[in-house]
Amino acid sequence: MPKNLIIASTSTIHGSGYLEYLLPELETFYKNTDTIIFIPYARPGGISHDQYTDIASKAFKKIGKKIIGLHIFTDTIEAIENAEGIFTGGGNTFVLVNQLYKTNILPALRKKIFEGTPYLGTSAGSNICGLTMQTTNDMPITYPPSFKTIGALPFNINPHYLDPIKGSTHMGETRETRIKEFHAHNTIPVVGIREGSWLEVKNQTIQLKGTPTARIFEKGKAPYEIDTGSILDF
Amino acid sequence: MPKNLIIASTSTIHGSGYLEYLLPELETFYKNTDTIIFIPYARPGGISHDQYTDIASKAFKKIGKKIIGLHIFTDTIEAIENAEGIFTGGGNTFVLVNQLYKTNILPALRKKIFEGTPYLGTSAGSNICGLTMQTTNDMPITYPPSFKTIGALPFNINPHYLDPIKGSTHMGETRETRIKEFHAHNTIPVVGIREGSWLEVKNQTIQLKGTPTARIFEKGKAPYEIDTGSILDF
Repeated sequence: MPKNLIIASTSTIHGSGYLEYLLPELETFYKNTDTIIFIPYARPGGISHDQYTDIASKAFKKIGKKIIGLHIFTDTIEAIENAEGIFTGGGNTFVLVNQLYKTNILPALRKKIFEGTPYLGTSAGSNICGLTMQTTNDMPITYPPSFKTIGALPFNINPHYLDPIKGSTHMGETRETRIKEFHAHNTIPVVGIREGSWLEVKNQTIQLKGTPTARIFEKGKAPYEIDTGSILDF
Repeated sequence: MPKNLIIASTSTIHGSGYLEYLLPELETFYKNTDTIIFIPYARPGGISHDQYTDIASKAFKKIGKKIIGLHIFTDTIEAIENAEGIFTGGGNTFVLVNQLYKTNILPALRKKIFEGTPYLGTSAGSNICGLTMQTTNDMPITYPPSFKTIGALPFNINPHYLDPIKGSTHMGETRETRIKEFHAHNTIPVVGIREGSWLEVKNQTIQLKGTPTARIFEKGKAPYEIDTGSILDF
């Protein structure tokens, strides 16, 4: 199956503008695409679909791409079917997944991704590329009909992966403990991608790109690190 | 309605044993109770119900109380109905709530709480005292039939409340941003209780106890702090 995805931990790295660190990559990625359909459903900080689409538009204007928010279409399934390129932004994964089910676009979105349409996800938009959204960091502020997601990857994502903070006296679970709890109930591997890195999916090949290493969690194994440039084939 | 609850942010504070900081309080709280029914369903770190019950037993033995795990009863509803005292431990709120629905004990648990049976909750066990579990920090590692919880409080809890870490370069949402996103979709007030504090519910009075202040989030208002000793009556 042809596939062409960039699955990023974060839209924004510290001290830099929205998508800025990814723009050189995105220029190549979307080279055959003038217009990108933006899925603004995750509504970071509760902003509106229009406000969110404006933010994405401004960033993509710098590389000469036109962004159209999916929310303005009457027939959103048709809009996905006709998309030359797709971008799903971050925010709250529960809100995003709920809206994807409500608008019934998941099958069309999955089909487009498996046909090789360039797809960029950041944070919540990356989470939905996994088998389920169950390793999101977000609060369950809405109740989606299911936690199942697109399954463009044979594992789950934990975006904004965070190492335990040295010297912290906080007793809340670390990210690693939370993923360990996930594996007490599920067998799906989890890839913790740190801010500044992304997974590049080209057909059957999944490669870690960007600066930091990633942390891999497989049920029954000790977690381990992989370097940037690594092919993920576990 | 008579009510008698301790709703704690955490079971354990840094550098101290399980429940240690709360034991003097619990000695008075459970003074008319020899035996406490322990709800171990949240399974912190994926440990078994038996293992978790052992941990709780050891702590309560220090104040002469006997702990019985709810999981050993054939008729769990009857066990709740007959309970002299109840304690729900922390762990994963999704796993806990899923099991509460699966065993069908929520109505009995609610009835007991509204009859004044002493109830202690820590972390996930505190979350379920709110109107919904939607301000948990946990990962959605199981899919519960609903996010509705006991509603012993007229608001939601965010346990292990965490202030933004000064100088952090991490771009993942802060706790405050997450709760703000909750209020983009919901009107329920949220009380962020920091580790080392708890809410004491005596009939209609809810009071903040312990050391740190708590942070209150009401939709459409700026978040604000309340001191220990404050009565929560918003």
